[in-house]
Amino acid sequence: MRMLINVPETVVADGLRGMAAAHPDLSVDVDNRVVVRRDAPVEGKVGLVSGGGSGHEPLHGGFVGPGMLSAACPGEVFTSPVPDQMVRAATAVDSGAGVLFIVKNYTGDVLNFDMAAELAEDEGVRVGKVLVNDDVAVVDSLFTAGRRGTGATLFVEKIAGAAAEEGAPLERVEAIGRQVNESARSFGVALSAVTTPSKGSPTFDLPDGELELGIGIHGEPGRERRAMMTSREIADFAVNAVLEDLNPSGPVIALVNGMGATPLLELYGFNAEVQRVLAERGVAVARTLVGNYVTSLDMAGCSVTLCQVDEDLLRLWDAPVQTPALRWGR
Amino acid sequence: MRMLINVPETVVADGLRGMAAAHPDLSVDVDNRVVVRRDAPVEGKVGLVSGGGSGHEPLHGGFVGPGMLSAACPGEVFTSPVPDQMVRAATAVDSGAGVLFIVKNYTGDVLNFDMAAELAEDEGVRVGKVLVNDDVAVVDSLFTAGRRGTGATLFVEKIAGAAAEEGAPLERVEAIGRQVNESARSFGVALSAVTTPSKGSPTFDLPDGELELGIGIHGEPGRERRAMMTSREIADFAVNAVLEDLNPSGPVIALVNGMGATPLLELYGFNAEVQRVLAERGVAVARTLVGNYVTSLDMAGCSVTLCQVDEDLLRLWDAPVQTPALRWGR
Repeated sequence: MRMLINVPETVVADGLRGMAAAHPDLSVDVDNRVVVRRDAPVEGKVGLVSGGGSGHEPLHGGFVGPGMLSAACPGEVFTSPVPDQMVRAATAVDSGAGVLFIVKNYTGDVLNFDMAAELAEDEGVRVGKVLVNDDVAVVDSLFTAGRRGTGATLFVEKIAGAAAEEGAPLERVEAIGRQVNESARSFGVALSAVTTPSKGSPTFDLPDGELELGIGIHGEPGRERRAMMTSREIADFAVNAVLEDLNPSGPVIALVNGMGATPLLELYGFNAEVQRVLAERGVAVARTLVGNYVTSLDMAGCSVTLCQVDEDLLRLWDAPVQTPALRWGR
Repeated sequence: MRMLINVPETVVADGLRGMAAAHPDLSVDVDNRVVVRRDAPVEGKVGLVSGGGSGHEPLHGGFVGPGMLSAACPGEVFTSPVPDQMVRAATAVDSGAGVLFIVKNYTGDVLNFDMAAELAEDEGVRVGKVLVNDDVAVVDSLFTAGRRGTGATLFVEKIAGAAAEEGAPLERVEAIGRQVNESARSFGVALSAVTTPSKGSPTFDLPDGELELGIGIHGEPGRERRAMMTSREIADFAVNAVLEDLNPSGPVIALVNGMGATPLLELYGFNAEVQRVLAERGVAVARTLVGNYVTSLDMAGCSVTLCQVDEDLLRLWDAPVQTPALRWGR
């Protein structure tokens, strides 16, 4: 146990208290577990609400702010938030223009967001929904019917968030969110297992000297386990797995994402290999983001997400964003 | 070995290639190991150059850009860069207004930056220097005469960088850098040892269930080793250690820094405890930064840096910055 915590039971609440102290731009309701843009609801603007189990930080709370999410609902570690949180978030951010739920495809999240959508609509909030299911590693898994939702969530939240900030109506924001999800695919690799606070030991066994190709962000099994590979070999495998499923006819945005415990120096080195494979495959890269964005607590490893963009999606990607974890533009 | 690398020998070069691909705003000279603001030299502006061993990313390359460093010189992992790199950086960024070297207090860095200052002056570059020595854990250590330089480096680079961006002359930028260093103190804690690529195994032995109080950013020994403590207890120890040495009469900026492998969720929770101790001790907190900024590869753990600020330093802290790792304002 090498955790910087008090007791497992308070990890999420402690994290929210610390987030509130660090980010006065956010309104953090620690008791009800909702993180909201302080200026919400924004007159005439569609609200964007996401959420999911904790342990993937900065996703989702770190993406709340102008140009991205209006609110986030953190669940317990690796556990879906409950409908009450989502309804509270939806009513807090709805200006009358409606709210888009951005839902990673895990059974608990899907059920709870569906229930929350019904409850919010009962309270007069128009609700749209985008299901994120970008992970090409496996179809169906421990917590999923169909593909898992991982790195593409960042693209959906950023690009749909920019559209909402520009004043697009709910139907358009929802359509853009779906377009982004359909344009994005991911593949992840674990170099170590993940330890949750409540278990206190690795949730799966990954012997030293082996890696797991196609890992999920909760440590769900991937495609296969192999003897340790070089950064070059991992990039070949991961990028090719993505490109088997996504055949981009135009430029992509590349997210080279750390799982949590892999040093930034290594992620940059891995990015060099990812860019090499993309160049070899003739895929143009419009933008690249390298860092820990969609994590799995203390897991070592990485994932690659590619998102094909047209001019409009690229413009929305470049639009200003002011959140704890993504900030650029005015 | 759970590293995302090709071979240990190319880790730094691979990282620089990946950084170049991700950040077109930077000019990255992979062969000569210098990262420079693309628009350098900026007419009339003092240049800021820092550097040090690799393995502490995003420090220093991630802090190159408008409002912060003009250039960074990465050495091999945990090894000082050489004078040639520093001279190359200094001549690349000097507009005639002079260059400030920001040097963490490690024997190799100090010697090499001193030599580089002489060589650069021979080439007609005026050079100022700030030595960063904020770590209160130990006086003298494995690689240091006097205190080690750690988290305060970020404050010196940001605040002196903002002064330079405003057009302050070299003497003033240097004086501000020194004032920041004198106003800042740090204390770090390791929950696990660090593994360097060349060694391939932990550089020191830290049994599971123990932590090291006062660790250095290369895994240098700290003050003492104890049985695992809670986040609350660690915050009490670390903040009190800093406040024994720094007696702030005004507000501070708090950096709650991850060593590399500690999840952001835990760092936020730790921040809640740091803020509690500061409130108990009557220290006002003007700004807080939480994340992995001055790291030690895959070490788990954290450090706390407090920097006392007056109105002018706080204004310079808030001034716009556009670097890979710190971005805010216009």
